[in-house]
Amino acid sequence: MKAFEQFMHKELRLEGDGEDIEDICAGTDRYCMFKTGPVLSVSHGMGIPSISIMLHELIKLLHHAHCCDVTIIRIGTSGGIGIAPGSVVITDTAVDSFFKPRFEQVILDNVVTRSTELDKELANDLFNCSREIPNVPTLIGHTMCTYDFYEGQGRLDGALCSFSREKKLDYLKRAYRAGVRNIEMESTVFAAMCGLCGLRAAVVCVTLLDRLESDQINLSHDVLVEYQQRPQLLISNFIKKQLGLCDQMS
Amino acid sequence: MKAFEQFMHKELRLEGDGEDIEDICAGTDRYCMFKTGPVLSVSHGMGIPSISIMLHELIKLLHHAHCCDVTIIRIGTSGGIGIAPGSVVITDTAVDSFFKPRFEQVILDNVVTRSTELDKELANDLFNCSREIPNVPTLIGHTMCTYDFYEGQGRLDGALCSFSREKKLDYLKRAYRAGVRNIEMESTVFAAMCGLCGLRAAVVCVTLLDRLESDQINLSHDVLVEYQQRPQLLISNFIKKQLGLCDQMS
Repeated sequence: MKAFEQFMHKELRLEGDGEDIEDICAGTDRYCMFKTGPVLSVSHGMGIPSISIMLHELIKLLHHAHCCDVTIIRIGTSGGIGIAPGSVVITDTAVDSFFKPRFEQVILDNVVTRSTELDKELANDLFNCSREIPNVPTLIGHTMCTYDFYEGQGRLDGALCSFSREKKLDYLKRAYRAGVRNIEMESTVFAAMCGLCGLRAAVVCVTLLDRLESDQINLSHDVLVEYQQRPQLLISNFIKKQLGLCDQMS
Repeated sequence: MKAFEQFMHKELRLEGDGEDIEDICAGTDRYCMFKTGPVLSVSHGMGIPSISIMLHELIKLLHHAHCCDVTIIRIGTSGGIGIAPGSVVITDTAVDSFFKPRFEQVILDNVVTRSTELDKELANDLFNCSREIPNVPTLIGHTMCTYDFYEGQGRLDGALCSFSREKKLDYLKRAYRAGVRNIEMESTVFAAMCGLCGLRAAVVCVTLLDRLESDQINLSHDVLVEYQQRPQLLISNFIKKQLGLCDQMS
């Protein structure tokens, strides 16, 4: 993860070479956290439970640090549906496995349904920012968030698989018709918690494959690395704009 | 995580000092994996989605490596209910937030209910093994597996909390009466997947606090480290017995 922080460090034209950026959470192997100028970046592990623990703890930290007017953006990778690999999807609404814009939170033994809408203005600002980056196809769409990477996302190549290729494609095509353009595993709880806590939130993920075509990534290592940097590039450009650093940029 | 592998290396009386044990998954920061003699140990991140990805990939690996007669044991930490902190709980059955012995797997957009029973003979063998370890209280009980650490486990100290201390205690006491002795976040999907794939499986977690008493850990660092080593000690003793190494031990 440190590569992104070093990149941000350079982009924000901070002093030093960024080599000395320290993982604030180095005492645990559960998360990494870096502070680069005014930017805090935190790893969140995989899946709803993992990011939810991080968010509870981060939001408490922001509260005690008296931070206000906070913008929080999840960046990562995802599987695309019906769009070219390498596309960046800015999420307008996170939906669950049933294409519903909701997050079902179990509280004690009650199920409470929470909204998963994200900040529309922030999504539009990010989209406008993306137009200044050449050769990175970017779109706004729904993002489906599942609890499971294999059976839950219709993959045929897991240790367990009980459905046919036809059923898989029928499901993914229904998702596409419902407006879903990519699939990942954290956006619903991220949208729900940030919404309830008043944080301006966005989700920006690159797609590594088109799930209508395949289940496995067949990109070369270099292409994969370049794709993974696309959300980082978009977000660092956005942060520079927010900080008024853009006019100084070459 | 490497500390455990070095401990295992020494316990299994393998050659070398264990300093050179390499993380087989060092190319990714998603998991760590070590092979120590005949023992493979893998980190699984936090929560059902994270361990589920690891299990799909591990089970495929075991299949392609033609491994048979595999025993798989999840070790970790947990919150106890009505038992002394530091107790080790060997799970007989993993239950969900509603105290039911089931894992609800979403497959495409269908919900399929799977059994979460674990291997009773293995649990008994582990319990018998624990009796030879002095000063480590060990018991067999149900383990509750939740999707959320804060609201889902009745914690009052998260960024969000919508229930009273009374409601929390009522819930945890009902869990206790249903046979639950500890709470963690991976056991249901672990039991379900291992059961379906024919792996002999167990879950062994130490409790770091009694949730009827508090939500936060107030142990000293040294005590915490010693508690966390208890499942490791039990499992390494069990492995030594399985490998017929016990008679040679001092």
